Amino acid sequence: MYSGIVKRLMDDNDLKIGDYVRFKSNKFEIEGKIIQNSEFTKENIIILKYENGYNLGLDVTGLMVEKIKRADEAETESEAKAEISINKDLPKISIIYTGGTIGSKVDYRTGGVYMLLKPEELLSSVPELSNIADIKPRQLFSVASEDMTFHEWRAIAKAITEEINNGSRGIVITIGTDTMHYISAALSFMVQNLNVPVVLTGSQRSSDRGSSDAFMNLICSAQIAAKSNVNEVGICMHKSSSDDACIFIRGTKARKMNTSRRDAFRPINDLPIAEVKMDGEINYTNDYINKPSGKLELKDGFEEKVALIKVFPNSDPDIINYYVKKGYKGIIIEGTGLGHTPVSGDPEKSYLKNIKSAVDSGVIIGMTSQCIYGRVNSKVYTNLRLLSEAGVIYCEDMTPETAYVKLAWLLGNYSSEDAKRLLNQNMVGEIRNRTLYDEFLI
Amino acid sequence: MYSGIVKRLMDDNDLKIGDYVRFKSNKFEIEGKIIQNSEFTKENIIILKYENGYNLGLDVTGLMVEKIKRADEAETESEAKAEISINKDLPKISIIYTGGTIGSKVDYRTGGVYMLLKPEELLSSVPELSNIADIKPRQLFSVASEDMTFHEWRAIAKAITEEINNGSRGIVITIGTDTMHYISAALSFMVQNLNVPVVLTGSQRSSDRGSSDAFMNLICSAQIAAKSNVNEVGICMHKSSSDDACIFIRGTKARKMNTSRRDAFRPINDLPIAEVKMDGEINYTNDYINKPSGKLELKDGFEEKVALIKVFPNSDPDIINYYVKKGYKGIIIEGTGLGHTPVSGDPEKSYLKNIKSAVDSGVIIGMTSQCIYGRVNSKVYTNLRLLSEAGVIYCEDMTPETAYVKLAWLLGNYSSEDAKRLLNQNMVGEIRNRTLYDEFLI
Repeated sequence: MYSGIVKRLMDDNDLKIGDYVRFKSNKFEIEGKIIQNSEFTKENIIILKYENGYNLGLDVTGLMVEKIKRADEAETESEAKAEISINKDLPKISIIYTGGTIGSKVDYRTGGVYMLLKPEELLSSVPELSNIADIKPRQLFSVASEDMTFHEWRAIAKAITEEINNGSRGIVITIGTDTMHYISAALSFMVQNLNVPVVLTGSQRSSDRGSSDAFMNLICSAQIAAKSNVNEVGICMHKSSSDDACIFIRGTKARKMNTSRRDAFRPINDLPIAEVKMDGEINYTNDYINKPSGKLELKDGFEEKVALIKVFPNSDPDIINYYVKKGYKGIIIEGTGLGHTPVSGDPEKSYLKNIKSAVDSGVIIGMTSQCIYGRVNSKVYTNLRLLSEAGVIYCEDMTPETAYVKLAWLLGNYSSEDAKRLLNQNMVGEIRNRTLYDEFLI
Repeated sequence: MYSGIVKRLMDDNDLKIGDYVRFKSNKFEIEGKIIQNSEFTKENIIILKYENGYNLGLDVTGLMVEKIKRADEAETESEAKAEISINKDLPKISIIYTGGTIGSKVDYRTGGVYMLLKPEELLSSVPELSNIADIKPRQLFSVASEDMTFHEWRAIAKAITEEINNGSRGIVITIGTDTMHYISAALSFMVQNLNVPVVLTGSQRSSDRGSSDAFMNLICSAQIAAKSNVNEVGICMHKSSSDDACIFIRGTKARKMNTSRRDAFRPINDLPIAEVKMDGEINYTNDYINKPSGKLELKDGFEEKVALIKVFPNSDPDIINYYVKKGYKGIIIEGTGLGHTPVSGDPEKSYLKNIKSAVDSGVIIGMTSQCIYGRVNSKVYTNLRLLSEAGVIYCEDMTPETAYVKLAWLLGNYSSEDAKRLLNQNMVGEIRNRTLYDEFLI
C-alpha cells in the first residue's frame, strides 16, 4: 500500500490503483497505469506500468499528475504499439542479446509463461532507445547465464569485435545476471585494446514483478555506449533500489551481491567508473581507460582445467589432489581472512603438503579471500608465509571470481611460466595498488 | 600525518608525535603517547599508545588535553605496571582465550616477534575490564582460527557450559577472526537453551599496527557479557572503522567481509542485535532471545563428511560424484543468483544428473547463494525448479557458511531424515522469515 507523499498525491487527485495517468515535470512526461508498490518501494516512489509491459518506479517529488483514464476503462483498451523510429544521425551502437531475464516477458493472456522477446520486440518496447542512438539489435543466442561456458563467452567476444569492425561506437550486451560478473571479467581480458565502451546489462526482476529494472538498465547502458569514452568492459545496473541512477562498474571489479535486489551489482575494492541517469547525464567517479594502447585484438583462449575451491573449517585437503590427478593446470583457492588455509593444526587437515606437491608438479595455485572485500597478504602471519613459501601466488585485491577467470584465460593464451608471472600483476584494471577507505560495502 | 581538527589541537598545545598526554572529558580521562595515524584514520581521531602497548583511536572533539611529558623523556622511562583489582560485587563473567591475533603482542625489545599473551597478562593490560565485571580468565588453548576443526569447536562449547555451571552470567571468548563466523554459528547450534550471553571477539590488527582494535573489542564484549540479557551466541567487533562503538551480531548471521578492516564483521540478512559502547551503553537494534525455552544442553555431534562447494562457470559437475564416492553425507552448494547450478546448457557441464543420483543415494544437498546477501528461491526460473525437483533443499537466507555448519551439526545429532527436514527450518535465528530493506551491505 502507498503511504506518505504518494498517498497524499493520490488522494488529492482522486487516483486509484489501475488508473492510467500522465506525470509531468518541465523535463519529461511519462504515462502509465498505477500499479501496487512492493515492500521494497520507497515512500516517494509510485510504480507505473507502461503500455509495453515494463514498470517504472517514479519519484513523485515535484511532479504534476493528470488522470487520463479510470481503472475500468484502461483495463479494456487494447495495447497501443510503440513505433521504432531510426535516426541515422545519432551515434551507432549495437545491442547484443544473449538471453536472461531481460529477454523474457510474461504472456498476459496465458499468465506466468515466459517467452523469449525478439530483439526487435525488446527494442520496440523501449522506444526511448531510438532517441539515444542509431541502434543495431543482434540476437546471438538465448542461454541463461548460469548455463554459459567458455564457448558462449568466446561467441560474445567475437561478436563484440565484429560489431566494432562494422562501425559501432559502443556495444550493449544483455545477459543473465547470475554469472554476469564472471563474463564481464572474461571479456575484459579477451578483447584486448578495446576502443569503444562495452556495457553488460540485464534485469533482476521480470516485468511481472513490482517494478522491473530492465527498462532503466537498458536506457542507461545505451547512454554509456553512445556517449562515453570509457574504453573498457563494464556492468551497468541500478545504483540503488530506487530508479534514480545506474552505476557503471569495471568488469573485473564487479560482483552480484544480492540474490534479488535491483542494486545487486556492486563494485568490489573499487569505485564505480561512472553514475549515469536515463537522461544521459554521466558523472565519472573513477579513473578509466579512454585510449587503447594498441590495436584491437581477440585473445580468446581458455584452459578448461582450472578450478575454484572454497576452503572451510574441517575440510579435507584431498580436494587439491583430486584436481591434480584430473590434470588440472590451475587452482584458485578462496581462503579465509588474509588468504589462509588450515596449515599448522591437525596434520590431516593441513593443506600445506598437498599444495606443495601440486605446485611442484607445475600446477599454478592462486590465493584469494572469501571475505570478498580487502586484499590478501602473504606476510602478516606465519601460516601465510608457509603457504607463500610453498609457491602459492597471492592475488592481491582480486575477487575469487575474477582470479578464476584470469587464471583460466592466462593458461589458455600464455605459457605456464608467463601465466604464473602475470597472475598477480595488473593487466586491465583487475588489481588496484591501493584500497580506498570508501570502497567497502558500497 | 594528522590534519584538520587534530592538527590544530596539536599545534595549539605544542604537541608532537611521541609526547605523553592526558585527554579529559567530564566522563573520562585517558593517558597515552601520541603516535602516528594511518591512512584509514579519520580526521577527528588521534591515536594514543597506552603504556601497556595497546593503541586507541580517540575522537578529540570536545576533549581537553594536557601534556605530561615531552617525547624524549617519555621514551626513556620504564613502563608502569597496571594493577588488576578484583571487585567481587560486580557481575561474574568468564573470558576464555583460544588464540588468534588478540592473544598476541609485539615484543618491543626484539622487534616484530609475536609472543603469546597469558590470560593474566591480557587482563592486566586492559585494567578497565576489572571495573566492568568480576572476571575469571581461562586459557583453553592457542590455535589460529583457520586451523581449528570440530575438535576445538567442541572444546569451546564444553568450556562454555562449564563456565555457566560455575556461575558465570556471561562468557567472552577471544578467538582468531578468520573462521569466527563459522564458529559462532557452530556454538549457536551446539549449546542449546543458552541462558547467558556468549560473546565472541578478536582483533583485526595486532598492537603494533596504526591502531589495534583489541582493547575496545574486549571492553565492549565484556559489557555485553556482564550487562545484557541476550541469551544467544554473537560476535562483538567494531561497528565502523573509528572507535565509536561495537556491534553485537547474531552468531548465525555474521560474516567476515573484509580481510583487514576493523569493521570487517557484518550482519548478513539481519540487523545487529545491539550496539555497545565502551562505557557500557547498550542500544538494542533487533529482537533476541532473552529466555531459554528449556534446560541448558550440549549437543556437540558433527558429521565429518559434509562439504561446501562453490559452483562456477565451466566447472566440472564430477565434483559431486567425488564427494559421494568418498562417502559424504551432505553437501552445501554455493550456487549463483537465486540458487543455480548449470542445468540446461552443455550436458557435460550440467550438475542435474549428478545431483539427482547423489540425492537418490541419500546425500543431503542444500543450496545457498554466492551472492551472500538475499535469499535463495526454488520457484522463479525453470532451472531452479529442476534442481528443487531433483531434491535440492533451498536454504532460505542462510549464508553458505552457516548452512555448512548447520548441516554438519544436524547430521551429527539427528537422523538423516530429521536433518533433511530441519535444514531449511529456523532453529536458533539462522533463518529469518523476511529480509528487511535495510539489511543489505551494512
